[in-house]
Amino acid sequence: MGLTHFDDQGNAVMVDVAGKDETRRVAVARGRVLAAPETLRLIRDHGLKKGDVLSVAQLAGIMGAKRTPDLIPLCHPLALTKVTVDLSLDEAADAVEITATCALTGRTGVEMEALTAVSVAALTVYDMCKAMDRGMRITDIRLVHKSGGASGRFDAD
Amino acid sequence: MGLTHFDDQGNAVMVDVAGKDETRRVAVARGRVLAAPETLRLIRDHGLKKGDVLSVAQLAGIMGAKRTPDLIPLCHPLALTKVTVDLSLDEAADAVEITATCALTGRTGVEMEALTAVSVAALTVYDMCKAMDRGMRITDIRLVHKSGGASGRFDAD
Amino acid sequence: MGLTHFDDQGNAVMVDVAGKDETRRVAVARGRVLAAPETLRLIRDHGLKKGDVLSVAQLAGIMGAKRTPDLIPLCHPLALTKVTVDLSLDEAADAVEITATCALTGRTGVEMEALTAVSVAALTVYDMCKAMDRGMRITDIRLVHKSGGASGRFDAD
Amino acid sequence: MGLTHFDDQGNAVMVDVAGKDETRRVAVARGRVLAAPETLRLIRDHGLKKGDVLSVAQLAGIMGAKRTPDLIPLCHPLALTKVTVDLSLDEAADAVEITATCALTGRTGVEMEALTAVSVAALTVYDMCKAMDRGMRITDIRLVHKSGGASGRFDAD
Amino acid sequence: MGLTHFDDQGNAVMVDVAGKDETRRVAVARGRVLAAPETLRLIRDHGLKKGDVLSVAQLAGIMGAKRTPDLIPLCHPLALTKVTVDLSLDEAADAVEITATCALTGRTGVEMEALTAVSVAALTVYDMCKAMDRGMRITDIRLVHKSGGASGRFDAD
Amino acid sequence: MGLTHFDDQGNAVMVDVAGKDETRRVAVARGRVLAAPETLRLIRDHGLKKGDVLSVAQLAGIMGAKRTPDLIPLCHPLALTKVTVDLSLDEAADAVEITATCALTGRTGVEMEALTAVSVAALTVYDMCKAMDRGMRITDIRLVHKSGGASGRFDAD
Repeated sequence: MGLTHFDDQGNAVMVDVAGKDETRRVAVARGRVLAAPETLRLIRDHGLKKGDVLSVAQLAGIMGAKRTPDLIPLCHPLALTKVTVDLSLDEAADAVEITATCALTGRTGVEMEALTAVSVAALTVYDMCKAMDRGMRITDIRLVHKSGGASGRFDAD
Repeated sequence: MGLTHFDDQGNAVMVDVAGKDETRRVAVARGRVLAAPETLRLIRDHGLKKGDVLSVAQLAGIMGAKRTPDLIPLCHPLALTKVTVDLSLDEAADAVEITATCALTGRTGVEMEALTAVSVAALTVYDMCKAMDRGMRITDIRLVHKSGGASGRFDAD
Repeated sequence: MGLTHFDDQGNAVMVDVAGKDETRRVAVARGRVLAAPETLRLIRDHGLKKGDVLSVAQLAGIMGAKRTPDLIPLCHPLALTKVTVDLSLDEAADAVEITATCALTGRTGVEMEALTAVSVAALTVYDMCKAMDRGMRITDIRLVHKSGGASGRFDAD
Repeated sequence: MGLTHFDDQGNAVMVDVAGKDETRRVAVARGRVLAAPETLRLIRDHGLKKGDVLSVAQLAGIMGAKRTPDLIPLCHPLALTKVTVDLSLDEAADAVEITATCALTGRTGVEMEALTAVSVAALTVYDMCKAMDRGMRITDIRLVHKSGGASGRFDAD
Repeated sequence: MGLTHFDDQGNAVMVDVAGKDETRRVAVARGRVLAAPETLRLIRDHGLKKGDVLSVAQLAGIMGAKRTPDLIPLCHPLALTKVTVDLSLDEAADAVEITATCALTGRTGVEMEALTAVSVAALTVYDMCKAMDRGMRITDIRLVHKSGGASGRFDAD
Repeated sequence: MGLTHFDDQGNAVMVDVAGKDETRRVAVARGRVLAAPETLRLIRDHGLKKGDVLSVAQLAGIMGAKRTPDLIPLCHPLALTKVTVDLSLDEAADAVEITATCALTGRTGVEMEALTAVSVAALTVYDMCKAMDRGMRITDIRLVHKSGGASGRFDAD
């Protein structure tokens, strides 16, 4: 299988999905932000109050999923019917864990929407903690589940 | 040092930067996309033609940097004077390496713009290769250099 | 009935509407801008020419309806099939009256689109008259009609 | 004083502000959402948890301020240096009270940014509570303070 | 036939397309950028490398098609299923030739999306060559094919 | 002089303008929409009412100028201080004539903003008249004046 986003002349294209079936499509993506123990402790302690880092990042992730076709040049505009983003602290791993789930009934998958939601949530965590910890790393952003469509089910992890 | 994006009542705020000096500010961020050897080979072979994966991702990264304040809730709108994004293949590491540099003369740093450029470029690589390789990982997105502003110079790597 | 935009753990979510029926959905919202008599007189007199305040505000309202999912974090992206915005002067009430109607055939209602259209039209009236009247008030923005969907018909006023 | 957003031929224009002084400009706007007592009680009770209605609306308001020039046709694009949005419950008045403050050093005022922040925050409160209370009203959105620029200081309320 | 975007009172409206049939709709638009022979030679010579002018403009055109409802006030938001943009040099005519094709299955045509794709691609060619050639002209942007919908097939050229 | 938007390796870049002087920069662009005499007659007759084709297109042009950095990949985000768009009928030439003027005090020119304003205004004229005249052409979009910056004054026409 080759690169589907180019035509025979090597031009980038937004490929025609009109011939694909309208099916229920779900994608789950994950990623993490590695941070210093002190940073994670501060996120946790602050999280007991309203307006905490993880809530802001979660909302940014949901809104980011909706911006996917504006950001990724060859992504189709989609009418997402569901977006959830979960963030939790894994202090043993010095990490903020992020999981995003997107779904719709349509002709093309929602992997990029789920991956974009994770990325934007991770960038927002970075933004809110960067004054105290410049060495954070956004890492391991990946697809962990996909269903619907001709290519069938995919499960990782 | 605590979390700068919250006020005393725990409300998220876009902090006032009016009192900061207008200085030349530069940020460099890096990241990589891990992919199967066959995927990287295809990117390399296709890259000999115009409209290749890396060029599309590079352009997406530059445009993504400009969307940073739309994506990251508490980021200030900024008039970037420079954005460059470089992508290269590191086949020994089974990776696409991405580096972004942003600069302006202003009152707040451009780390988030550089990190967003890397993230959007990485997501675009994923999008263009996902039909053949669902197991790719976007990883190690981090700040490697920052200069300008009161917090001084930062260098990693 | 509780707050539908949170899951059991208290996380904000864009709720899954895939299970809802595709029905014709209509929403009508209203609001007004209270202004000084002299301001209203100027709007009226200028309105005899092209490019008047009410026409600019009307167009801004229509375009604003399309931006709803960008603005309201947990709103679904929707393919609106109709947007109308009407503005008229009620000089007896010292007010610009604004009515917006949105419609589509889909799985979720268009109340937020109609309310956003009214809000953006009202803000535009304020913007265009603010040099002469800083004391204007945007007020009484409310849903006056809703039909389609499981929750049934709603009529106010 | 007439309508500043039209030229002599009656064309709408984005007026030239190049000749204005760069001064520190601040604007404060306020508004409220009137709701049923039961709705306010639910917002309050839920607010003890993370991800509450008021936090989501606050963030939406901050992000909305940044979208002002996209929404209001004749507004100048501005590099805001500060945005804060506060929401609180006034159960005696059956209302959510919203206050937004915007600031920058520049050639044009930030009233529209503060008013837009209040409007988007109010719309978000409506969105999150509409399943239980369709009769809410967004009301009394107004400028309460403005300083900087040739027109001098304005204080209301 | 009159102007369909106005109602009986002369108000601009986003017309209701809910009653139209969902059919396969295709539109093809064309345009050209006239430039000095030396400019075209430079585009051609540079085009042998990656990241050339025509590839950047092509991608901008595809992304531009997706922004159509943000730009054209009374355009409906659409879920495009296909966008392709082709650019080629016609050195005999001192021109860059641009063709865009858009398609979807829906209730309204995609002419504006195809015309917007051509326009944004042309503007991008101008932007990238303007330092050496200020006298370029964007010209002859027109619809050359349209099918689907009640108004039937249209072919020009 | 070569192509300024590529570096030595052929990568597209948003070039650094930090070293350029902050000067007053003005650009004027023009273009026209060729239409059937009957179409122009309808625009003229309708233009006597409010909400006419030319007013809608003018407003779209002003708003389009502000979207330039979102549309043109390597354009810098700019804080425009002035945008005007004028449309008039030239029935002898079967044309709608469009002129846009943009200005700011900054480090980079505003030609692309003026050309984008003309393009979006022209597309909007097309959109509003397309139901009666599919054969319209958008043509002769060009820079007619530019001042400010190191490259000096440019005047065409």
